[in-house]
Amino acid sequence: MHDFREIGARLRNWGRWGDDDERGTVNLITPERLVEAAGLVRRGAIFDLGIPFDGNGPQPGGGRINPVRLMSETGHDQDFPGAFHYADDYVFMPLQSASQWDGLAHVFYDDQLYNGFPSSDVGPHGAKHCSIDKLAKGIAGRGVLLDIARLKGVEWLEQGYVITPDDLDAAAERQGVEVRSGDILLFRTGWRTKFVTDGDAVSFMAGEPGLGLACCEWLHEREVAVVASDNWAIEALPGEIETEMLPVHMVLIRDMGMTLGEILDFDELAADCEDDGVWEFFLTSPPIKFSNAVGSPINPLAIK
Amino acid sequence: MHDFREIGARLRNWGRWGDDDERGTVNLITPERLVEAAGLVRRGAIFDLGIPFDGNGPQPGGGRINPVRLMSETGHDQDFPGAFHYADDYVFMPLQSASQWDGLAHVFYDDQLYNGFPSSDVGPHGAKHCSIDKLAKGIAGRGVLLDIARLKGVEWLEQGYVITPDDLDAAAERQGVEVRSGDILLFRTGWRTKFVTDGDAVSFMAGEPGLGLACCEWLHEREVAVVASDNWAIEALPGEIETEMLPVHMVLIRDMGMTLGEILDFDELAADCEDDGVWEFFLTSPPIKFSNAVGSPINPLAIK
Amino acid sequence: MHDFREIGARLRNWGRWGDDDERGTVNLITPERLVEAAGLVRRGAIFDLGIPFDGNGPQPGGGRINPVRLMSETGHDQDFPGAFHYADDYVFMPLQSASQWDGLAHVFYDDQLYNGFPSSDVGPHGAKHCSIDKLAKGIAGRGVLLDIARLKGVEWLEQGYVITPDDLDAAAERQGVEVRSGDILLFRTGWRTKFVTDGDAVSFMAGEPGLGLACCEWLHEREVAVVASDNWAIEALPGEIETEMLPVHMVLIRDMGMTLGEILDFDELAADCEDDGVWEFFLTSPPIKFSNAVGSPINPLAIK
Amino acid sequence: MHDFREIGARLRNWGRWGDDDERGTVNLITPERLVEAAGLVRRGAIFDLGIPFDGNGPQPGGGRINPVRLMSETGHDQDFPGAFHYADDYVFMPLQSASQWDGLAHVFYDDQLYNGFPSSDVGPHGAKHCSIDKLAKGIAGRGVLLDIARLKGVEWLEQGYVITPDDLDAAAERQGVEVRSGDILLFRTGWRTKFVTDGDAVSFMAGEPGLGLACCEWLHEREVAVVASDNWAIEALPGEIETEMLPVHMVLIRDMGMTLGEILDFDELAADCEDDGVWEFFLTSPPIKFSNAVGSPINPLAIK
Repeated sequence: MHDFREIGARLRNWGRWGDDDERGTVNLITPERLVEAAGLVRRGAIFDLGIPFDGNGPQPGGGRINPVRLMSETGHDQDFPGAFHYADDYVFMPLQSASQWDGLAHVFYDDQLYNGFPSSDVGPHGAKHCSIDKLAKGIAGRGVLLDIARLKGVEWLEQGYVITPDDLDAAAERQGVEVRSGDILLFRTGWRTKFVTDGDAVSFMAGEPGLGLACCEWLHEREVAVVASDNWAIEALPGEIETEMLPVHMVLIRDMGMTLGEILDFDELAADCEDDGVWEFFLTSPPIKFSNAVGSPINPLAIK
Repeated sequence: MHDFREIGARLRNWGRWGDDDERGTVNLITPERLVEAAGLVRRGAIFDLGIPFDGNGPQPGGGRINPVRLMSETGHDQDFPGAFHYADDYVFMPLQSASQWDGLAHVFYDDQLYNGFPSSDVGPHGAKHCSIDKLAKGIAGRGVLLDIARLKGVEWLEQGYVITPDDLDAAAERQGVEVRSGDILLFRTGWRTKFVTDGDAVSFMAGEPGLGLACCEWLHEREVAVVASDNWAIEALPGEIETEMLPVHMVLIRDMGMTLGEILDFDELAADCEDDGVWEFFLTSPPIKFSNAVGSPINPLAIK
Repeated sequence: MHDFREIGARLRNWGRWGDDDERGTVNLITPERLVEAAGLVRRGAIFDLGIPFDGNGPQPGGGRINPVRLMSETGHDQDFPGAFHYADDYVFMPLQSASQWDGLAHVFYDDQLYNGFPSSDVGPHGAKHCSIDKLAKGIAGRGVLLDIARLKGVEWLEQGYVITPDDLDAAAERQGVEVRSGDILLFRTGWRTKFVTDGDAVSFMAGEPGLGLACCEWLHEREVAVVASDNWAIEALPGEIETEMLPVHMVLIRDMGMTLGEILDFDELAADCEDDGVWEFFLTSPPIKFSNAVGSPINPLAIK
Repeated sequence: MHDFREIGARLRNWGRWGDDDERGTVNLITPERLVEAAGLVRRGAIFDLGIPFDGNGPQPGGGRINPVRLMSETGHDQDFPGAFHYADDYVFMPLQSASQWDGLAHVFYDDQLYNGFPSSDVGPHGAKHCSIDKLAKGIAGRGVLLDIARLKGVEWLEQGYVITPDDLDAAAERQGVEVRSGDILLFRTGWRTKFVTDGDAVSFMAGEPGLGLACCEWLHEREVAVVASDNWAIEALPGEIETEMLPVHMVLIRDMGMTLGEILDFDELAADCEDDGVWEFFLTSPPIKFSNAVGSPINPLAIK
């Protein structure tokens, strides 16, 4: 039986980068690691890991909806001097409706956010601390993809499948890649592949394969800076603790201070990595600087 | 007297990358250029060039407004099983209200978009061709900053100041940097500095210093891939042709197929470059993949 | 076989209230009719016919969504001088997502709107003619409810059931009520009752029982001013003409100039009418004055 | 010196209509009053008191913005079977950006709402009690207009002008009208006339003429059900108590349980009343039934 509070207390990074730190494990991407990571750009090949932002996304409605984009100008009824015509659009969307960073103020428990900030810092105007714009300088560093679906020989892992540290190790070994301090770890479950295949938003959001609680320690030991996936919540759902919602979120975000990347598409990248045997790359993914926000839409680039 | 149609016809890149190309001059960033650009990451220093996205932005109202971000969940009235609480936010905004890419479908004249696509491709549901998601693999390459305000020894250039090719050359010479094929050219006018100083959105949008029409040819000759600025429309306003709105937009976007970056903040980057004398860097800035959209919010990262 | 164009041409009201009229059959509610209608207020009982506007509405997603209402202020983190606290909310919604008036610019065919206005009057900024704000003085007059579901002895009519003129006459006869010139006719299909019972938005929008084309003539002969229902499109779906979408809309709105009221809830009112045998009442339902809009959310009041 | 808490305590209606009442003084509109009010419809003339909802409204930006309405369909790029084309629109707006009802959950102090409900009932999902949909059966009854600007012989009262009970009495006497129990009282300051004249949103919202605190007692004694104005906050701004924001709001809404109507346009109605000498009419103005909302856009109809 997992006790997420015990795990959280053990892996907690509060104070590790100062009492006023609001960036968490992103601090593990040191300038040296960043320079090394840029050296992984060898072929000049770019892979975009964001999904399309439109009405056909994976939100079935309810708390979050798919983005609604509308034209404010099409250019066709304008009467400017001369030849000029322009088009413009507006969007209404949850910041976490599609490919996204979860900011460190996204989740809390026992009245505290990451680094001990009081949960009252999050209110009707957003987050006074740990908001997504504190990561404005973005997330750029060495990316490593572990393809768990390929490891298991399936198109996608089943809903509720709990990925273990052994799975992560086995994938790394199969792929011949090592996870190091300051890495941005991407793990592929195939859950996005399933949605692309069946287009079923209700099923996509009803549960998912994902990390088990034991992986928190694995990530902590290896000093992973950021973790991201092609599912929508990183962790297995239904989870390992019947009486707790999203315990991996609570440990990773609130205790460890780890930014999570969700609803990404690794299919093109994974195929390329399988092909050339290179599972490491330079990854950059700045959040849009929404002041006081708890998340941001993203389109991460993996560059090999 | 400038004849923008003549200039446009002369600099037109239609067909240069195929009749169905929708990426324009971004094609100039070849894999080789991209690999070289990554080599500019030497210190591991990141500069975020996006401005804050919030209600205090530079839109005075009218066609565009500042982003409105609202909390859908603050976490404080939830009753999940166990300890979990989460916060979530929504945003409503013009895609081009703050730091942004202008996509190639943003502007047209004489019933045609870039590469000869009919302007009827842009309609109430967005752009069938040349939408911003066609640049999903983003814009990553060698960035060069030319600081025209510093060249002229002013905090910011005056409204309506027309930047000339000589200005661009003089800035490059003063800074000891060369503009090359496939570059992402940033030029600093100080117009963002002015807004940060006086907070006057009406004045910010009433006009601006920016490129003159002659710079289009300069950009074309050097095979610049993308141009971006700290003003809101790249070009001088009021412009050089009394009877034409935004002629530089028309030539750059519609004829040359050049993506424009607007409302960026170069102040921290420029100070650093002035300090270390290095005005080149790796620049990455993926658009968010809004399907059929004509622009995207961005937060470009310059990495030295 | 129905020829909707022939029916439309026969029932067309173009020019009837002047060549520049934008109000259509609402003109049938003369001052005299309005005064008589107010005389129907005898008991001082009000029935609200609007449905709740929230995330649990009947839109399954797609072209329209349910309203998203978010708090911009909850009052709890404010620090005004003294004791004052206030709450505020925003909404994002299709104007026709729940209880609504369809304005006369909502539908067109053969390049013309009601009264011969060109369909090019409707564009990216809305409707230059026949917009909903032209009905600002609202819709107030004698309301009559015909309960077709009760007539047929069912909780709700089946999807695709085509209501005939005979059905309307039989309901009026059963109820002992007469439909007169200038009336606001409400007809109850039970389709809202079905949604309240099963909560199934997909099924609600997949089709519906409603008026057949022959009812257009019936409405025309009786000089009905406005027609409204508890379904979402007034007419039967699937309709009577396989090759035409929503022909009743085309005839009523575009040819006759009739404003339609949709997604209303008549259940409380119908029960009361069945109880006291009085099926006529004063009905008022002003649109919100959205400039150039093609529809408006409403909450009609029936007062007996 | 005014002590708003003392006034509030004295005029408080808590418990008057039951401990669970969420409608407040609207209860004063009894069925008898409603029937009498309908009898005021004598000429069949309608006056719409809502202002236009569009980008040219009175919000200068900041906490509230003017409504943004965008077309999701213009009808021109559709390809349905047959002849059908349709247009549709979306809106994003604060519920209290233009003509509006302030619901009883809009304002609180000392941790309590109207009728003693705890202010914690208002949270990130809206109001659990006293939300605007509790007034779904709307506000319909006898309306009386008191034209204070005409009384004073000015186009509009000056910003900060404090309307007194004597002003209200003098206006009623000049007009030959009596204010009675259950009335919907409209008072005209000319502040809307000023905005229509100068179009200056900043000046419109910077302050206003309006009721003084002493009027609360006047309204209480006469058992006024609802009060509404052509300004944006009913009360004088700056107000009579330097250290308290909006004390009239606090007394009327929170203590007396009175719904307020704001940003209305009485100019056409006032001119008609001045002309025929009849200052009473039937007034109906249902809120849109936004679940849990604290306000609603409206378009009241005055019918004579």
